[in-house]
Amino acid sequence: MEKLKRIIDLIEPLDKNTLKKAQARLDILTKPQGSLGRLEELAKTIIAIKGKEIKELPQKAIFTFAADHGVAEEGVSAFPQEVTLQMVRNFINGGAAVNVLAAHAGARLVLCDIGVSKSLKADKGLVVKKWLNGTQNMSKGPAMSRQDAIRAIETGIESLEEECRKGLDLAGTGEMGIANTTAASAITAVLTRKDASQVTGKGTGIMDAILAKKIKIIRRSIKINKPDPRDPLDVLSKVGGLEIAALTGVILAAASRKVPVIIDGFISASAALSAFCLCPVSREYMIASHCSAEKGHRYILKHMKHLPVLDLGLRLGEGTGACLAMPIIDAALKIYHNMATFTSAGVSREKAK
Amino acid sequence: MEKLKRIIDLIEPLDKNTLKKAQARLDILTKPQGSLGRLEELAKTIIAIKGKEIKELPQKAIFTFAADHGVAEEGVSAFPQEVTLQMVRNFINGGAAVNVLAAHAGARLVLCDIGVSKSLKADKGLVVKKWLNGTQNMSKGPAMSRQDAIRAIETGIESLEEECRKGLDLAGTGEMGIANTTAASAITAVLTRKDASQVTGKGTGIMDAILAKKIKIIRRSIKINKPDPRDPLDVLSKVGGLEIAALTGVILAAASRKVPVIIDGFISASAALSAFCLCPVSREYMIASHCSAEKGHRYILKHMKHLPVLDLGLRLGEGTGACLAMPIIDAALKIYHNMATFTSAGVSREKAK
Repeated sequence: MEKLKRIIDLIEPLDKNTLKKAQARLDILTKPQGSLGRLEELAKTIIAIKGKEIKELPQKAIFTFAADHGVAEEGVSAFPQEVTLQMVRNFINGGAAVNVLAAHAGARLVLCDIGVSKSLKADKGLVVKKWLNGTQNMSKGPAMSRQDAIRAIETGIESLEEECRKGLDLAGTGEMGIANTTAASAITAVLTRKDASQVTGKGTGIMDAILAKKIKIIRRSIKINKPDPRDPLDVLSKVGGLEIAALTGVILAAASRKVPVIIDGFISASAALSAFCLCPVSREYMIASHCSAEKGHRYILKHMKHLPVLDLGLRLGEGTGACLAMPIIDAALKIYHNMATFTSAGVSREKAK
Repeated sequence: MEKLKRIIDLIEPLDKNTLKKAQARLDILTKPQGSLGRLEELAKTIIAIKGKEIKELPQKAIFTFAADHGVAEEGVSAFPQEVTLQMVRNFINGGAAVNVLAAHAGARLVLCDIGVSKSLKADKGLVVKKWLNGTQNMSKGPAMSRQDAIRAIETGIESLEEECRKGLDLAGTGEMGIANTTAASAITAVLTRKDASQVTGKGTGIMDAILAKKIKIIRRSIKINKPDPRDPLDVLSKVGGLEIAALTGVILAAASRKVPVIIDGFISASAALSAFCLCPVSREYMIASHCSAEKGHRYILKHMKHLPVLDLGLRLGEGTGACLAMPIIDAALKIYHNMATFTSAGVSREKAK
């Protein structure tokens, strides 16, 4: 808990003066004021996070945490639980979507087992940091203890800090865990005060009858565990997941180290929401990559007043959406630095209004 | 007119069998079916356009046409008319947003003067193909003759074909022309059968009073010219623009040459809409890059059943949105080719439904 407290204490609001100066620079570039919309916002945000007119973000990493979920035994997913393990192997071998898209974005993949049910050996492509073989079935009791949730968050913090030592300019989140949309929906329902039916979707692609069961399981999990919406650690431990808690740590640590962090899909967003509830200022360091097809995601984005960069109907997770947003962020910084100004190009300004 | 007719005759619907085979390939990759959403659609579309499992699109070009608009004298823009010329010089010198973003996307900029009011010399960065110094004031009579509209379209066709001879895998559209949102709004109002007030926005950033005047000017232009909504050439000539007509040609020629063409912002979309009305099948070769902040754009996207790749609140044009969509399209093809299959990776499939 000490580590988590220390990290939260380090998180500062963005400097308003730097934001203002960055906007002033954007306003003298040869384009109508504000006409590059959210690209301008992205450039400003990155510069304010870094506290200087940084030119590029060469060191990029996607943090993909994998863990299993006891609630999978309720049959809430279209895939069997062993797929978590199989997909981690696929990540190690470079065959998954996140491998392809991380390479496309020029990002390294930081893959961590924080609770896959079967044993996995550390490998050049995998860090093993687990002490549990997944969570307990949250529909029968808490998914994990409060201590385990804190430990998972602090494990995420450690991972981010390890990568900072190697050099890290831009972080993205990702995850793998069969049944983790069930946990993410439960977290979202509690922290945004919605009914499970409003924030629960079809995950990997379940049938309507399974969706109805999934909603019932989430309602039951909330009813028997009574997570306290004012206490995000209580929520993460009772109806969360180890990988979700770890990502909460990654996000908070990124904010504390002034590293912009791109939030991937719905599960990552539930971690972002938890980080936001633990430390509202951390929100300023986050960039929403996309709005997933999973219906709970829109509620989180709305709750956090985040506008996504992409709207491609993705619902895969792993970090894929975060990777896809990276070239857009690179483009935003190039706009900031490489465009001519009205004066240097000899272009007339707007007429007096 | 012969050239335009010949091009339209060449445009064929995408092969349904190729689309189906591409979807079958996407469905055996290690991800839940359809979970990469519109990224999968993009991969499929590109492959069906090319008619083969193309691996990459190395030869990219943005076609940016510049022209002036007689209606600018009504004071419908926040910028004076000389900015068209000044911005073309800025494009030649590499200082504009489209230069920065085309370089980021690995695309060459094909810049063409098709009606800038002042004289410009051809340059290594500029092709001059004009025979008029802009359009006439459409609020007093037709913007141009039907023959000039056809000639502008055919000039766009020529440009696309010239670039095909150099090698062209992916095209994007762009434009520059002070007051061209006025023309684009007029085209949109006529072809989507909306009132001018529904499809007219603030362009480069005019005040409310100027917006009211702009709407009045558009209504008047439509009233006095009576463009026939069933005749897109009539619409383009009476209330269009030379650069918009040229882009209509670029888009139709791209479809005829089986080159996917990314539509930029609102003005490009009004050219896409014109191409669609001239030849509905051409729609299948277009990719909507983004939805601009300019309100008419949404109506065009809806009318054409296009979903944009990005939603960043851009309202600049030039080809900037088309450039930003290019890395997403590259990513889609990498997903198609570089991911493991369920069998090759040893990952279990969905449970039987």
